[in-house]
Amino acid sequence: MLSAFREVVLARRSVRRFAADKAIPGDVLSDILALTQRAPSSFNLQPWTCVLVRSRDQRELIGRAMLSESNRSRVLDAPVTAVFAADLEVAKLLPDLAESMRSAGRDKEAVENALISAGYYASSGKVLSFIKGIAARAASPIAPFPSPVAAQEWSVKSTMLAAQTYMLAATAHGLATAPMEGFDATRLQAYLDVPSRYSLPLVVPTGYAADEEDESLAKTTRYPRDRVFFEDTFGNALSSSIVDDNAE
Amino acid sequence: MLSAFREVVLARRSVRRFAADKAIPGDVLSDILALTQRAPSSFNLQPWTCVLVRSRDQRELIGRAMLSESNRSRVLDAPVTAVFAADLEVAKLLPDLAESMRSAGRDKEAVENALISAGYYASSGKVLSFIKGIAARAASPIAPFPSPVAAQEWSVKSTMLAAQTYMLAATAHGLATAPMEGFDATRLQAYLDVPSRYSLPLVVPTGYAADEEDESLAKTTRYPRDRVFFEDTFGNALSSSIVDDNAE
Repeated sequence: MLSAFREVVLARRSVRRFAADKAIPGDVLSDILALTQRAPSSFNLQPWTCVLVRSRDQRELIGRAMLSESNRSRVLDAPVTAVFAADLEVAKLLPDLAESMRSAGRDKEAVENALISAGYYASSGKVLSFIKGIAARAASPIAPFPSPVAAQEWSVKSTMLAAQTYMLAATAHGLATAPMEGFDATRLQAYLDVPSRYSLPLVVPTGYAADEEDESLAKTTRYPRDRVFFEDTFGNALSSSIVDDNAE
Repeated sequence: MLSAFREVVLARRSVRRFAADKAIPGDVLSDILALTQRAPSSFNLQPWTCVLVRSRDQRELIGRAMLSESNRSRVLDAPVTAVFAADLEVAKLLPDLAESMRSAGRDKEAVENALISAGYYASSGKVLSFIKGIAARAASPIAPFPSPVAAQEWSVKSTMLAAQTYMLAATAHGLATAPMEGFDATRLQAYLDVPSRYSLPLVVPTGYAADEEDESLAKTTRYPRDRVFFEDTFGNALSSSIVDDNAE
């Protein structure tokens, strides 16, 4: 399990060119979607959706929202472009959460507890007031206090956990991906009829790497581990047993 | 490669209790860190750091920043708690990016191009003005236009791609994790000496699941696929070949 997983993580890279129109089999794409949905999210609210752009017409349309020629050619060539959307009104997901728990046979108390916790953190200014009331009574000035987080950031966090799962799952299936932020979000949202309730944090063209895509291309560099990871406090060096980079 | 990867994704779940103080071998933790660093980030800026809280004293200290008894017991029991920090002043990373590319032997033009692209999107109000100038000249009123994104959200996005890679890598190593947002970020930041340049989007206790952690516990539910994924436009049903959930 481990070596195969490492292989997937080390094989993933952002490709420059996709093999034009080389289709992804339905069962492969289906499996990627199922795995993507297993990503965790705060209180299991799953505050995201994803539009899979597949038709030639729609690919050409969203190509017009891309900010560079290379991004445009990626969405034109790739048979699927996954457009991830973060839900900015997560309180609206509370009924979905309750319904999915009920239909899985969870008891009333479990559903209620989930709603209270989720509703508190999902607060977007639109959360039901009874849930807010419970949360406020639970808070005390001398106890640790939750930090206010904007709905946008909160939802984007869970969306990105799903997006990374999507990219790794695609890699495990031998596919190539290229996460992109270089697009005009206003245009893209309009082209795909995405309601204003959502924001679009990431677009991921998905397909097979083009033949001319050089497998031997140098991997992108990373900062030294001791610039990224610290131990016990910020800036404090890692213990010697974990300081070496032995991944490759 | 595929079936092992699927096994990792399907095995990952948020555990309630960790085996108290059951240590993670150094080479295991080291490998997880290396794999985590392979996560992609916008323009490869890698706008995050991570504090691995391991000492008993520090675990007790950060336990005081947790918002619930269950979160507190997780950080007390787990031998490692990864505290992810998103860098809100990403323009400060441009020299690091240049240095890491130079030391990997990339040529001057490649480094320059990376700096220009990264600097534009990394704009936090503190980006170098010459980079801003180039970007402004490149934009035209009738061309697709980049959407302004707050530095906080921008950095959190890349941080979460790394966090998900971390959790899956830990799972591949037989470890258990529990992503948590239920903490007092102000306290946690103070306890760990994290500079105000960073925000703390996620905390991940990491260790071995407690014996009493019931492996047969029902998995958390997910919304039906047709509520999450659409095809070509928002709200449009998936093609029949990818509509079935066949992951398990």
